[in-house]
Amino acid sequence: MRIITLLTDFGAQDYFVGAMKGVIISINSEVRIVDITHEIPPQDIESAAFNLLCCYKDFPEGTIHVAVVDPGVGSNRRAILIECAHQFFVGPDNGVFSWLCQKESNFRAIEITNDKFFRHPVSQTFHGRDIFAPVAAAISTGVAMEEFGPAIDGLAQLEPLEPKKVGQGIIEGAIINIDRFGNCITNLTRDHLSVVAKLMVSGREIGLRPFFAAEGMDDSDLFCVFGSAGFVEIAARNRSAAEILEARRGQAVLALTGRIG
Amino acid sequence: MRIITLLTDFGAQDYFVGAMKGVIISINSEVRIVDITHEIPPQDIESAAFNLLCCYKDFPEGTIHVAVVDPGVGSNRRAILIECAHQFFVGPDNGVFSWLCQKESNFRAIEITNDKFFRHPVSQTFHGRDIFAPVAAAISTGVAMEEFGPAIDGLAQLEPLEPKKVGQGIIEGAIINIDRFGNCITNLTRDHLSVVAKLMVSGREIGLRPFFAAEGMDDSDLFCVFGSAGFVEIAARNRSAAEILEARRGQAVLALTGRIG
Amino acid sequence: MRIITLLTDFGAQDYFVGAMKGVIISINSEVRIVDITHEIPPQDIESAAFNLLCCYKDFPEGTIHVAVVDPGVGSNRRAILIECAHQFFVGPDNGVFSWLCQKESNFRAIEITNDKFFRHPVSQTFHGRDIFAPVAAAISTGVAMEEFGPAIDGLAQLEPLEPKKVGQGIIEGAIINIDRFGNCITNLTRDHLSVVAKLMVSGREIGLRPFFAAEGMDDSDLFCVFGSAGFVEIAARNRSAAEILEARRGQAVLALTGRIG
Repeated sequence: MRIITLLTDFGAQDYFVGAMKGVIISINSEVRIVDITHEIPPQDIESAAFNLLCCYKDFPEGTIHVAVVDPGVGSNRRAILIECAHQFFVGPDNGVFSWLCQKESNFRAIEITNDKFFRHPVSQTFHGRDIFAPVAAAISTGVAMEEFGPAIDGLAQLEPLEPKKVGQGIIEGAIINIDRFGNCITNLTRDHLSVVAKLMVSGREIGLRPFFAAEGMDDSDLFCVFGSAGFVEIAARNRSAAEILEARRGQAVLALTGRIG
Repeated sequence: MRIITLLTDFGAQDYFVGAMKGVIISINSEVRIVDITHEIPPQDIESAAFNLLCCYKDFPEGTIHVAVVDPGVGSNRRAILIECAHQFFVGPDNGVFSWLCQKESNFRAIEITNDKFFRHPVSQTFHGRDIFAPVAAAISTGVAMEEFGPAIDGLAQLEPLEPKKVGQGIIEGAIINIDRFGNCITNLTRDHLSVVAKLMVSGREIGLRPFFAAEGMDDSDLFCVFGSAGFVEIAARNRSAAEILEARRGQAVLALTGRIG
Repeated sequence: MRIITLLTDFGAQDYFVGAMKGVIISINSEVRIVDITHEIPPQDIESAAFNLLCCYKDFPEGTIHVAVVDPGVGSNRRAILIECAHQFFVGPDNGVFSWLCQKESNFRAIEITNDKFFRHPVSQTFHGRDIFAPVAAAISTGVAMEEFGPAIDGLAQLEPLEPKKVGQGIIEGAIINIDRFGNCITNLTRDHLSVVAKLMVSGREIGLRPFFAAEGMDDSDLFCVFGSAGFVEIAARNRSAAEILEARRGQAVLALTGRIG
């Protein structure tokens, strides 16, 4: 049974996700559909890119990921299909897949143009249902990538995730996501962590601690942890670190390596 | 594999939907369950009716749709089973299926009375689990419609969706749904659109634009689009039209055909 | 097809639940995954225990329930696997399964220690993905319980659910859950109901009524109903009883048996 995952900003209140599933099942009654999330903030491409980046590797080879966060729907932005890491990715060409393509480096892309795979009539506002869902379903039935349109390059890119070295012993990273628990995920990785002594955020110093529920800590103590997504996270015990820091996504995080001077 | 869809106002925080799924799977381990939404506002029958109307056609023949928005649970409102458009619809007789029956015109209805298909004991408060889920599961195993109870007519009806002609060149419609993005869905259709020059809502004039992300528009510009559900929608670029308009469901929308006088 | 249910406090906005599903499917492509809820308030073990208690019986024998509300993740709290009522329960040893074990009385427990069943590297923050999901998937493929680790007892316990007799004709219960509709679920059962004449909550008297939508009631009238989870609930017609009562979980509910003195 092939797997199609769905990641959108459609929320849970409307019929949108149900309609996409109906379209998929009508084309391939044998496919398994898995929701990653539909609660991406409306039109927040970075959040979609981040969440997909954090979990695509947990799915088996051949999985087809559909990501629909699509502020450009109805304009001339391209619809694309990418093969990467033995999986497929279907969605708008707005950068939503750029971080995983940068990470994997090896991929190929097709512009989706063959409307024989679309649901008709194609609306101007809901390509998730009319283009991306039926194309994903067609892939799951074994249609070859080339059938959907011509090979392309020059895909839209989000700003790269990497932090910058800004001085002797100072790396400037950023908060790239804030999760449900208020943990602030940075773009610093284990490699950075191995040389970093402490972080500075909003003028506060934050040390490194080994896990969430440390002994002898106050709930307002902030600490760093190497998080489940492969990034350094800023956390507080039983509290939202984001609230304590009044953090917002994009905020700078200075990592001091302790080799100042 | 037969399909059962679920559409409720149960929300995501409680065990309600999980219990319904457990009951269904216990009766038919081979069925596929698809959530349409569980975030219908509590007891909002019109919203349930609208969302089901917008997506039932995307599911294959034989699909069994369960809709549980049921302010009358425990009273003497009937439980019903409808066959319509080669699909089945299970839920309370409170109008939740009336718009799709009006659209299809051809349907037959049964009152669900045969308690051998129920989960026992039947609670007074959760017929979704105790009546509608097990009945849907029984249908999915091939039980004939007649087994569940007697044929009925005189189903409960919601007020029809059609707008009214209120004067020479003026059609009075209404906002019938506001979606997650703040788009205001009206009950005007493509047929109306072909003769309409502009809309008036809350004293504002709204022109017709071809798609969501038009060039040269301000984010506060309102525009109309023929939406994915088959209705005219009022939208704004990258903003909530509902917020700009302070719109609420039921609000009047005047469509001026341009053939005044 | 074996069934794995998921009940967490992960919410819907992040990739967490999607990652767990990817891990499960990668191990057993034939399993059915059912979400009970992911909207348990962050780190609210009682709410998780209550919701699981209310629906596990609706699933077939052999079902594997995974409950991840885990404030102690990364500390030395144990990971456990319980067999109870011909079903399996996987999660942290923090009391989340204690109410159902008390109810069933017959169960056996294993500490999960065999890391050959884990996803590696095991993070310090996401055992749902790295331990509980792959262990549940392994169980679904038929791995024997003993393979996962040693038998244990002395499981962590939540405070028992039972109300107390506090005087002649007076039982002191509590509100143990408030659902989406504002119904206040108490820990009083049908047995209590048979001898109770009225309830006292926040200084208000509440009589017993047979069902939700009673005739001749105001929307602000509170009434009791024997709810779908097997407990007495306090409700209001078309309104949130919790709002009327300004109720919070844990609040005392006095049940007067009418045999005062």
